[in-house]
Amino acid sequence: MKINPISWFSDYPAEKYLIFDTMKKIIKDTYALFGFIPFETPAVERIETLKAKGWDDNEIYGIHRLNGEKNDADLALRFDLTVPLARYIAQYEGDIKFPFKRQHIDRSWRGERAQTWRAREFYQADIDIIGREKLPLFADVEVIQAIYQTLKNLNFWGFKIHINNKKILIWFLESIGVEWEKQKDIIAIIDKKDKLKIAGKDIKPFLSEIIKELSIVEEIIKYIQVSEMSKGEIMKFLSKYKNEVLEEGKKELNFVYDILLNAWVSENDICFDNTISRGLNYYTGTIFETFLREAQQYGSIASGGRYENLVGNFSKNTYPWVGGSIGLTRLFQVLDSLKKFDNEKKSFLDTLVLNMWDNYIRKYLEIADILRKEGFSTEIFLDSNIKMQKQLEYANAKNIHYALIIGEDEIQNNEISIKNLFTWDQERVKFEELKKYFS
Amino acid sequence: MKINPISWFSDYPAEKYLIFDTMKKIIKDTYALFGFIPFETPAVERIETLKAKGWDDNEIYGIHRLNGEKNDADLALRFDLTVPLARYIAQYEGDIKFPFKRQHIDRSWRGERAQTWRAREFYQADIDIIGREKLPLFADVEVIQAIYQTLKNLNFWGFKIHINNKKILIWFLESIGVEWEKQKDIIAIIDKKDKLKIAGKDIKPFLSEIIKELSIVEEIIKYIQVSEMSKGEIMKFLSKYKNEVLEEGKKELNFVYDILLNAWVSENDICFDNTISRGLNYYTGTIFETFLREAQQYGSIASGGRYENLVGNFSKNTYPWVGGSIGLTRLFQVLDSLKKFDNEKKSFLDTLVLNMWDNYIRKYLEIADILRKEGFSTEIFLDSNIKMQKQLEYANAKNIHYALIIGEDEIQNNEISIKNLFTWDQERVKFEELKKYFS
Repeated sequence: MKINPISWFSDYPAEKYLIFDTMKKIIKDTYALFGFIPFETPAVERIETLKAKGWDDNEIYGIHRLNGEKNDADLALRFDLTVPLARYIAQYEGDIKFPFKRQHIDRSWRGERAQTWRAREFYQADIDIIGREKLPLFADVEVIQAIYQTLKNLNFWGFKIHINNKKILIWFLESIGVEWEKQKDIIAIIDKKDKLKIAGKDIKPFLSEIIKELSIVEEIIKYIQVSEMSKGEIMKFLSKYKNEVLEEGKKELNFVYDILLNAWVSENDICFDNTISRGLNYYTGTIFETFLREAQQYGSIASGGRYENLVGNFSKNTYPWVGGSIGLTRLFQVLDSLKKFDNEKKSFLDTLVLNMWDNYIRKYLEIADILRKEGFSTEIFLDSNIKMQKQLEYANAKNIHYALIIGEDEIQNNEISIKNLFTWDQERVKFEELKKYFS
Repeated sequence: MKINPISWFSDYPAEKYLIFDTMKKIIKDTYALFGFIPFETPAVERIETLKAKGWDDNEIYGIHRLNGEKNDADLALRFDLTVPLARYIAQYEGDIKFPFKRQHIDRSWRGERAQTWRAREFYQADIDIIGREKLPLFADVEVIQAIYQTLKNLNFWGFKIHINNKKILIWFLESIGVEWEKQKDIIAIIDKKDKLKIAGKDIKPFLSEIIKELSIVEEIIKYIQVSEMSKGEIMKFLSKYKNEVLEEGKKELNFVYDILLNAWVSENDICFDNTISRGLNYYTGTIFETFLREAQQYGSIASGGRYENLVGNFSKNTYPWVGGSIGLTRLFQVLDSLKKFDNEKKSFLDTLVLNMWDNYIRKYLEIADILRKEGFSTEIFLDSNIKMQKQLEYANAKNIHYALIIGEDEIQNNEISIKNLFTWDQERVKFEELKKYFS
């Protein structure tokens, strides 16, 4: 049978996967330091649950038994980790202690149109804080700070978190007279401003197609232009627009922004960007997106924000919610395509016990047992018929740090030869000293 | 919208999931000590790949776009982690260094008929060693030893690994004259021997339905009876049957069994069981199953064995292979139903910084930063409007170890009050000594 690879469902080469797995671990451990508890929901949800928030049908993968019963026909694979959590909150609201802080690093599936940097199966690394009835603004800070610290710990090159508040964007448009029905289209155009710029296209005709009044179009263009400037300049610009909700948005933004700077977030890594919108979806307050400093064109690699009523479709109670998500597969793909991993050699195995003679196998097992108890990952070479030189080549190819050689001479002297394959040094130790040597 | 739970796709309560997650981590870390590298393949495969080994259609979940294009119609969710790996080996055979040792702890999906201890979405924790052309018998030892050590590290009550060699079972049947076509049915009956026993049913009529010759039926019954005895007794029984392949099976079994005992596997935790068969599937040599000592009726919770040619459908090359798998979801369900986790209180968060006044937030963040850098997971209570007593109750409910109190008095003296919530002791330290206190 010839194997026919599946586009957009990627295999990782084994060495690359080790890097991916290490990234997962760093993210999980950092999230945990901030008190986000590991948690998961099943990959499968009811279609009605997934569609409750108006998600595009065409992107959802339903599941069905191949020759099967009809009763699974209303099930589908989740397209993100947020909607299933909203369902979970509503289903178990009586049992959950609030605020509920969780992390979830897992796959979702979307039948997206083929496009660069889109995978149909992808990992996201989510954190969420869900309150009951109310959730202090400090939660917004915690989520962004945890995302910031995690990206720092991942230790790739520079990134910048762009912060905004949905109230600012929406109520600016309100106060210059853009009607509700047109806001969605205007926001979609603002969202594309960078792409238009790269393509060398003027944004004005696009705006004018929706809004006839030239003065309003020009206000929007000024709003976009000022986004490149400092927080002070943007605030000065906004001060012209009087509107209660917009004021509230500014106050919230200042609170979050200022505390983040207090929380050792570098001023280089964060900015107020009054143009980001996260689409016109559930968000109602703080929103953020994160761009790689030298690769902004790849889009946001970490984003999130606050929604006041995401569980609304499933429960009568109100659950204000702040969430953040690192697009792990996307981030990995981008870093990989930038050749970031090419020089990264992951050494997974610490020691290889060479296999010189089947009769010594008991000794080899004893040695492996000692090393594993000290926390050294250890392999006994499987085949005693292979020449020592070949066994050492195997160790080298796998980036193994130490080779342990126990031949006839070593056995007679109750010793072990230890070869450091990074320095090529070799020394002999007494069997009794092995544990000390590796501890 | 009312939430309609999905049977067989289980949510974990948040506290229980922590236990599950800890089990995952123990398994992953122990496998790693044996040199099994983390690795994964996508959840989705082509249907033709999944069916190459003759898997039951009805159990496979196909995926389809809800209102979508036809081109994804030949895709399905994997039903185990082995077949996708066989596909991977064949697809990338030129790039893989053999022997290829990997671990994979992940979900699979099966549309099984409703049945206790069966989930439609479930985790398995697999290890595999794949050789090219040949793979020494020592690989069988390594896989079983790693499974054994992992189950030991999971630290639940007793289990026993039952080991057999497929050649012994098959060639015993051959040598007493059971034709190939009837072997499958006979093995299926032998497989059910414990269930029949529990149900108080005699096995003889079931065997006689397939085989008319009474003497052969009686030989099989003796074969089953002797399985309860020691390895020596079973070997003595088998010595009556002369057959080259059966001899080979005995030799392999002795090799694996004896080395395992050398590898600090307790004689209480392992036995030679000439009746286990792992169905009539791919296995060709060593096979094993694992039962909970006091709950054998729940079936095997870890199993595996050797297959000489699993990749055969996908490649012209031969890849002998030894694999083992812990049925993680099953094991978790069984331990949970045995109330094993009821007294287990997982404390996830180490410290809670009480939130006394918004003006001190900078101080709280500084403290949290110090603690997190020392590896303590730390949360700042989100809401300064909540009374201290309530904040402490929250910490208690979450099993948090330390509460840090920084009120006006502490701030003026540059101190921190540290309350140990396990002992209810409280002491004051100078701010500068915080790091030392927690290191």
